[in-house]
Amino acid sequence: MTLMTSWVESANSADTDFPLNNLPYGVFSTNALEPRCGVAIGDQILDMAALEEAGLIELSEEPVFDVPYWNDVMELGVDAWEALRARLIELLSADAPEQASVAPHLVPMADVLLHMPMVVSEYTDFYAGKHHATNVGTMFRGAENALPPNWLHIPIGYNGRASTVVVSGTDIHRPNGQLKAPDADTPSFGPCKRLDIELEMGAIVGTSTDMGQTVSVAEADEMIFGYVLLNDWSARDIQAWEYQPLGPFQAKAFATSISPWIVTRAALEPFRTSTPEREKELLPYLQEPGPMLYNIDLSVIIEPEGGKQEVLARTNYNQMYYSAAQQLTHHASSGCAMNAGDLLGSGTISGPGKSERGSLLELSWGGKEPITLADGSTRSFIEDGDNMILTGHAQGEGFRIGFGACEGRILPAKRFP
Amino acid sequence: MTLMTSWVESANSADTDFPLNNLPYGVFSTNALEPRCGVAIGDQILDMAALEEAGLIELSEEPVFDVPYWNDVMELGVDAWEALRARLIELLSADAPEQASVAPHLVPMADVLLHMPMVVSEYTDFYAGKHHATNVGTMFRGAENALPPNWLHIPIGYNGRASTVVVSGTDIHRPNGQLKAPDADTPSFGPCKRLDIELEMGAIVGTSTDMGQTVSVAEADEMIFGYVLLNDWSARDIQAWEYQPLGPFQAKAFATSISPWIVTRAALEPFRTSTPEREKELLPYLQEPGPMLYNIDLSVIIEPEGGKQEVLARTNYNQMYYSAAQQLTHHASSGCAMNAGDLLGSGTISGPGKSERGSLLELSWGGKEPITLADGSTRSFIEDGDNMILTGHAQGEGFRIGFGACEGRILPAKRFP
Repeated sequence: MTLMTSWVESANSADTDFPLNNLPYGVFSTNALEPRCGVAIGDQILDMAALEEAGLIELSEEPVFDVPYWNDVMELGVDAWEALRARLIELLSADAPEQASVAPHLVPMADVLLHMPMVVSEYTDFYAGKHHATNVGTMFRGAENALPPNWLHIPIGYNGRASTVVVSGTDIHRPNGQLKAPDADTPSFGPCKRLDIELEMGAIVGTSTDMGQTVSVAEADEMIFGYVLLNDWSARDIQAWEYQPLGPFQAKAFATSISPWIVTRAALEPFRTSTPEREKELLPYLQEPGPMLYNIDLSVIIEPEGGKQEVLARTNYNQMYYSAAQQLTHHASSGCAMNAGDLLGSGTISGPGKSERGSLLELSWGGKEPITLADGSTRSFIEDGDNMILTGHAQGEGFRIGFGACEGRILPAKRFP
Repeated sequence: MTLMTSWVESANSADTDFPLNNLPYGVFSTNALEPRCGVAIGDQILDMAALEEAGLIELSEEPVFDVPYWNDVMELGVDAWEALRARLIELLSADAPEQASVAPHLVPMADVLLHMPMVVSEYTDFYAGKHHATNVGTMFRGAENALPPNWLHIPIGYNGRASTVVVSGTDIHRPNGQLKAPDADTPSFGPCKRLDIELEMGAIVGTSTDMGQTVSVAEADEMIFGYVLLNDWSARDIQAWEYQPLGPFQAKAFATSISPWIVTRAALEPFRTSTPEREKELLPYLQEPGPMLYNIDLSVIIEPEGGKQEVLARTNYNQMYYSAAQQLTHHASSGCAMNAGDLLGSGTISGPGKSERGSLLELSWGGKEPITLADGSTRSFIEDGDNMILTGHAQGEGFRIGFGACEGRILPAKRFP
């Protein structure tokens, strides 16, 4: 596949995140416009509510784009998703006869505020990166017992907190919590001292299942509406003290950031790739009928307060051991009802190399090997004022499918109690 | 406090669950009426949508009762909750002048279908019963290490799945899942063989907090709209294989049942009692300024298919080590945003005695001491066709504040894949 050209000139550059091949879905507002659905094209956003109002697109009898979320479109189902993409490509292609009527509904990206692209129904976070799980397991339990016995059989996941999933650009206060140093007799309560990121992809479930219903991996793949970058902010010291025996809770509950644009499954289609060869054969319900991961280059960037951006790590989504489709199949396998707007975090994505690690915990090896930044300062974990940025794109021939950035600056802890 | 009398005669009996002192909130429908808000009084339900339509109650400029959930009322805030209760007592008291105009809006409970009383925003389950945690810990880790080191300091909790919280009376299919016998080399996939209940109370958060906001225990107590009985159905064999290192997931995701009536905090006020003396002093943010548990008698009942109901255990909510207010304070302590409609499971409630245990896992001691039923059959865990029933009430002088039943029958597993 090569670049598809558009009459929106800025969409035809080899290094834009948003060529006609992409067409990701977001929610934007301006001084004049209330939050509404929009589609990114080059350096512009197509105002979908205005387009619908003008009769240039009609997905449903009721308007679906004049709301600040894409959940209504998701609920129309896969056929509607395909029709929407086809119509958008038609309207925005270089030779589109509708150019003159569509052009007035473009809004420069520089003038907008971006919001959460959907209402998150529920948020589930997985632990499907083998290099990450091995690194963390080695630090905590030793190399011999790095991977838990179930890890090669189950896409391990836990329920996260949907109420604190926020869009890129939202400042995050350093959380307070119960902490206990290994040599302390009793715990204390105060600001997290080991604040971390987790580089992840988020898959957005677009169609719902009933309680008691199960889905095959092929069906699960079809249920996915699109993908975002996801930073699963983690308070490592709170986590260490609280997580036995029922898993992470407040260590992850304070914030999860996502990139503002939902990149559709259709846009990523040319970049499909397979999960790695299995060390243990998967149970039949988890076996993939085809390639269900994607080749997506990912970076972790730090921007200290008043300083310059600096890349800390580069890796790829193709490093995962389980795909989002496998995770979704497992999620519904007990009969758990899934809903449009459910967000599935992939788990931290790390590659095999030292510079391919998707968390500071791994990059600084638990704080034992602090990272030295260009300004001479060091980091084991995040400091107040640091802006942490994730970026990602799939690289095509002369074009790329970008996600936009997923960033968040850490503000000092609030006083409590 | 003694019985408050009503002109609804059936509400004046010493053994009704729903005297005027109670006035719990539910959602009902009939052949003629769409699901709407209702209040239980004796053997009747007051149709709140009709009452509002008739101008007999006005909480807000917009109608709030003609919808199938109480979330809108929750969001009006504590003052509105108090005004609502005061007005209902006024309208339903024995000497109420409005009797003739209110009476036409009563619907016999025998004629209705009960629905979920609210939209569950998110569901969190705690692990705050010391006898339960000690019993389970003893079975799995031995008496020496029964309680995890954090247990006396943190109200341990984990995020559950809101999409499968269902109202009492909903049938539940036995879940499938990954299982691995201790002596097996590899896991298999199939129906759960160790299906269990967990006797819990559910606290419903009625007011929201912003991300980054924290609340004291006293504030948290005020945020609670009311309580329900809650059965946290659990697949023990799925749980045993999946739960390390990130906690329960599919073992709990298939279903959680709640009783249909939200019993308000105001109705339970006379039954407040304190959490037990602390073995370790709690950190200041978790210390209670007053009694925040409630004295509520609870029972677990089994009804085998075609058989008779039989009590398996009796205990009391006053056995908990942490109150819902403490749990809510901890939940928000990292800055986690809380929303109206959030449901907090107390954790399994067990007393010190053998007949006071709130799960079959404890009652049959992990299957080693099967329970013999009246019909001569035995149970280590739940069998297909068993109807599992939780009941609860606070006992006053000549009246009781009842919750109605929380029941669910187990149907055979569906075939998957």
